[in-house]
Amino acid sequence: MRPIDIIEKKRDGNELTAEEIEFFIQGYTQGDIPDYQAAAWLMAVYLRGMSEREIRDLTLAIARSGTMLDLSDVAPIVVDKHSSGGVGDKVTLVAAPVVAACGVPVGKMTGRGLGFTGGTVDKLESIPGFRTDLSPQEFKSQLARIGIVITGQSASLAPADRKLYALRDVTGTVSSLPLIASSILGKKLAGGANAILLDVKVGSGTFMKTVDDATCLAETMVRLGRELGRRVSALISDMNQPLGWAVGNALEVQEAINVLHEDGPSDLREHCLVVAAEMLVLAGRVADSAEGVEMAAQTIADGSAWHKFRALVAAQGGDVRFVDEPDRLPRAPIVEVLPAPADGYLQKIDAAQVGMAVVDLGGGREKKEDPIDHSVGVIVHYKVGDWVQSGTPLYTLHANDRTRLEQARARLVAACTIGPEPVSPPPLFYKKIGA
Amino acid sequence: MRPIDIIEKKRDGNELTAEEIEFFIQGYTQGDIPDYQAAAWLMAVYLRGMSEREIRDLTLAIARSGTMLDLSDVAPIVVDKHSSGGVGDKVTLVAAPVVAACGVPVGKMTGRGLGFTGGTVDKLESIPGFRTDLSPQEFKSQLARIGIVITGQSASLAPADRKLYALRDVTGTVSSLPLIASSILGKKLAGGANAILLDVKVGSGTFMKTVDDATCLAETMVRLGRELGRRVSALISDMNQPLGWAVGNALEVQEAINVLHEDGPSDLREHCLVVAAEMLVLAGRVADSAEGVEMAAQTIADGSAWHKFRALVAAQGGDVRFVDEPDRLPRAPIVEVLPAPADGYLQKIDAAQVGMAVVDLGGGREKKEDPIDHSVGVIVHYKVGDWVQSGTPLYTLHANDRTRLEQARARLVAACTIGPEPVSPPPLFYKKIGA
Repeated sequence: MRPIDIIEKKRDGNELTAEEIEFFIQGYTQGDIPDYQAAAWLMAVYLRGMSEREIRDLTLAIARSGTMLDLSDVAPIVVDKHSSGGVGDKVTLVAAPVVAACGVPVGKMTGRGLGFTGGTVDKLESIPGFRTDLSPQEFKSQLARIGIVITGQSASLAPADRKLYALRDVTGTVSSLPLIASSILGKKLAGGANAILLDVKVGSGTFMKTVDDATCLAETMVRLGRELGRRVSALISDMNQPLGWAVGNALEVQEAINVLHEDGPSDLREHCLVVAAEMLVLAGRVADSAEGVEMAAQTIADGSAWHKFRALVAAQGGDVRFVDEPDRLPRAPIVEVLPAPADGYLQKIDAAQVGMAVVDLGGGREKKEDPIDHSVGVIVHYKVGDWVQSGTPLYTLHANDRTRLEQARARLVAACTIGPEPVSPPPLFYKKIGA
Repeated sequence: MRPIDIIEKKRDGNELTAEEIEFFIQGYTQGDIPDYQAAAWLMAVYLRGMSEREIRDLTLAIARSGTMLDLSDVAPIVVDKHSSGGVGDKVTLVAAPVVAACGVPVGKMTGRGLGFTGGTVDKLESIPGFRTDLSPQEFKSQLARIGIVITGQSASLAPADRKLYALRDVTGTVSSLPLIASSILGKKLAGGANAILLDVKVGSGTFMKTVDDATCLAETMVRLGRELGRRVSALISDMNQPLGWAVGNALEVQEAINVLHEDGPSDLREHCLVVAAEMLVLAGRVADSAEGVEMAAQTIADGSAWHKFRALVAAQGGDVRFVDEPDRLPRAPIVEVLPAPADGYLQKIDAAQVGMAVVDLGGGREKKEDPIDHSVGVIVHYKVGDWVQSGTPLYTLHANDRTRLEQARARLVAACTIGPEPVSPPPLFYKKIGA
């Protein structure tokens, strides 16, 4: 087999065999196939697409490119969730301890943020001492011990995905259904969870611009995941405006802690409860979503979810004083309020632009190697559909640098539209797939 | 400007501006844009195509990536030819001295062979001492002195094309009209000739599988060349069977010398006369093709074309004893005749397979860096449409190695079809464009 023949076959719109896909992915992972051949192949896949059979084989090839974790000796069912990424998405920080508090083990490997999309690993690293580099062995033993782990992707798991993703990022081949689906599921297969909830976002802050596109991606992943022997369902949720109020690493941890204390924004609380409920359904812990929401809410009300979160922080080396008293979390020295320029209804607040403003402030990264400032961020004081009164706080900016603050401020002003016509708030969720 | 934006713009089927194309090509040539980004872009161009305006700007960007030769102080009109490559194509070795003998300067930079396609530079290097690495200064002074030069592409001319071609070769992006047209014309623009005859081949031994595809490529290049201030016309010629009898470097030089001595295969002689005639028409030396053919034939009959060829060899350091007595040219030690297995008409003889057989024998290269054996090759004794008598020589193989010979033999047996139904010989030329 020669890489060039596989590139040309896909270029010409033909279906690749399982052997060809396996050969290409393992060859690329091992460095036998150079970046430039993989780049040409990725563009051919982007423009020619893949059949569902090809996506399944690509998913398997990615999963098999490294160690595959076997969690069956830890628990019969381990649940995981995946969010397709967004702005202000701190749902894992709430939903994972909630589900674990219901007695369902949650074992999650997660990513860092790139561009305006935040990453759970970055958020958790706002907590001094918190380790996100657990070994597969540490992952398993903590999961067995306290029923919850959230760590970075181990270097030995799905290395093909790491290499492919880095290449896709610089070759214009990110937003391709076959490549997204296989990347997500390939990692999840390798991570060992047998029940997976997918939270697929739609809107300006995501790859998927329409509910139809997101549905298509979600349906493909649900079908594929099931064919591959996993329990999978998906939620299609809105990401046209940020989720909750806080965007920025430490600010988001604080907001998640607030939700665990029955405080914080109601949209975020509701989102977390629904996600947790679906995870409980998948795990067979509850009969339906309504029962799941009720059980989830109970773990917040009785403090058990909070205690699970605290146990997670302690187990992974985090200093619990910082979550017990979140005011201790990293704080930016400049805090500035941006008042609303006019009366009216908040008609739009562009999630991507708010995310970019946090990147401007230093809270996100342009490139994979960039350092990140955990203390900076933006608080959004209104949600779409709210009546805004001129002069009241529209945003609060947390910055470390005046120049960066000015850049972020300009972007935030442009990101929202206030007008006289009332608008309905967008739904939190558009649909549920496969539940 | 960012390379990723240019990749995505083309990926999405949009037209690139002249500035974007210039930025990408110069950035790639200078090493600021890495191979993997260029590979993704090439695949996007392959699958999305380019407008004629984009092809023109790409051609200019390639031409401007290095030195541009100005030949206006040598002669008002310098003519060049380009063949899209084939098997047994030694036309330049005859047509260039014929045209030069008619008083029209011929200045040609040409390539090496790759795969089963032979290269004029490789053929000329069968002649001991022949230099194909003339500097631009040597090129100009020889052109002024004797009116004929055939050398390898100078490293300072169109370096973008060299880099792009090497990348296209390994990324499945060779057979793309915009990339082929801009590669050919970009080099020709840089080479300084103001009249260019394109010999576009159709058939198994070429990129272009149909007359329609070849016509489309030729028409595009003729239009573009004229817009860019050059006199350009094109011939569409057959390459389903090898041209002439000889395939292999020294064997082809010998056959070209035979044609210059009014000997050799009639298809090759006719092809050379027509190509030379069109070059003379382009240069304004004759009024029409018929007059051109007559003048060309006269230079062969009176020996002036042969003397021009001999002068070329001498000027470029070649040992003229080897062309005066071509039996001295490199000879392979094993010469074996493959007899016809049956009576019948020769219905097909696959040019690509004959070319590959010569690669098997060591007379072509798989990769750019491979060495080449000038002595080996194949003589084809019949042309399509001929009556073949069982037991008479079908091929003669010239080999240096028994194993390689067996490999080539098997391929050659499979390459031809002999059957009872008579077939008409294919035409030498399908059409002429822009003359």
